[in-house]
Amino acid sequence: MLIVHVHVHVRSECVQEFREATIENARHSIQEPGIARFDVVQRTDDPTRFVLVEAYYDEAATKAHKETSHYAKWRDAVAPMMAETRTSVRFTNLFPDSKDW
Amino acid sequence: MLIVHVHVHVRSECVQEFREATIENARHSIQEPGIARFDVVQRTDDPTRFVLVEAYYDEAATKAHKETSHYAKWRDAVAPMMAETRTSVRFTNLFPDSKDW
Repeated sequence: MLIVHVHVHVRSECVQEFREATIENARHSIQEPGIARFDVVQRTDDPTRFVLVEAYYDEAATKAHKETSHYAKWRDAVAPMMAETRTSVRFTNLFPDSKDW
Repeated sequence: MLIVHVHVHVRSECVQEFREATIENARHSIQEPGIARFDVVQRTDDPTRFVLVEAYYDEAATKAHKETSHYAKWRDAVAPMMAETRTSVRFTNLFPDSKDW
């Protein structure tokens, strides 16, 4: 598994719009064959901060995701909402085993 | 849902020992009735850094987890392995819906 945490900080006036665009993107992304999970979570102590937790079966799946129309739509829609450049961190899974994601 | 990301940085000589103790803790934790997920991931660019992604059904479940014997065993076992104090960040779920965790 290849797990990617995307950290997003949006401008406060964009929170609702970002939520809607990102849930829409997640609904499509979770249907991609290379994606096991596509969670979107919002910080309880700062609602302008989000993490997208994306679990891919392999590296090729991360590339396939970036080539989808829903990703392009989301990327362009949220670009003006960013309070700062988003960052992503990559991980491998220790638990659960890959078959259980 | 209440999602907790626990960020851990361990001393380099403790990586393997930390992995083993943390997988053991995760195996027990995922069996708690209040826990939907208990993922452990390791950074690909820095194997001394981990995130525990803990998904609880409610606040009470977070307290129940801290009262288990496996949590106490893990906490004490890993205490001397820390390179710095671990931090945790709390989130609510936007996607998927709570019934799907």
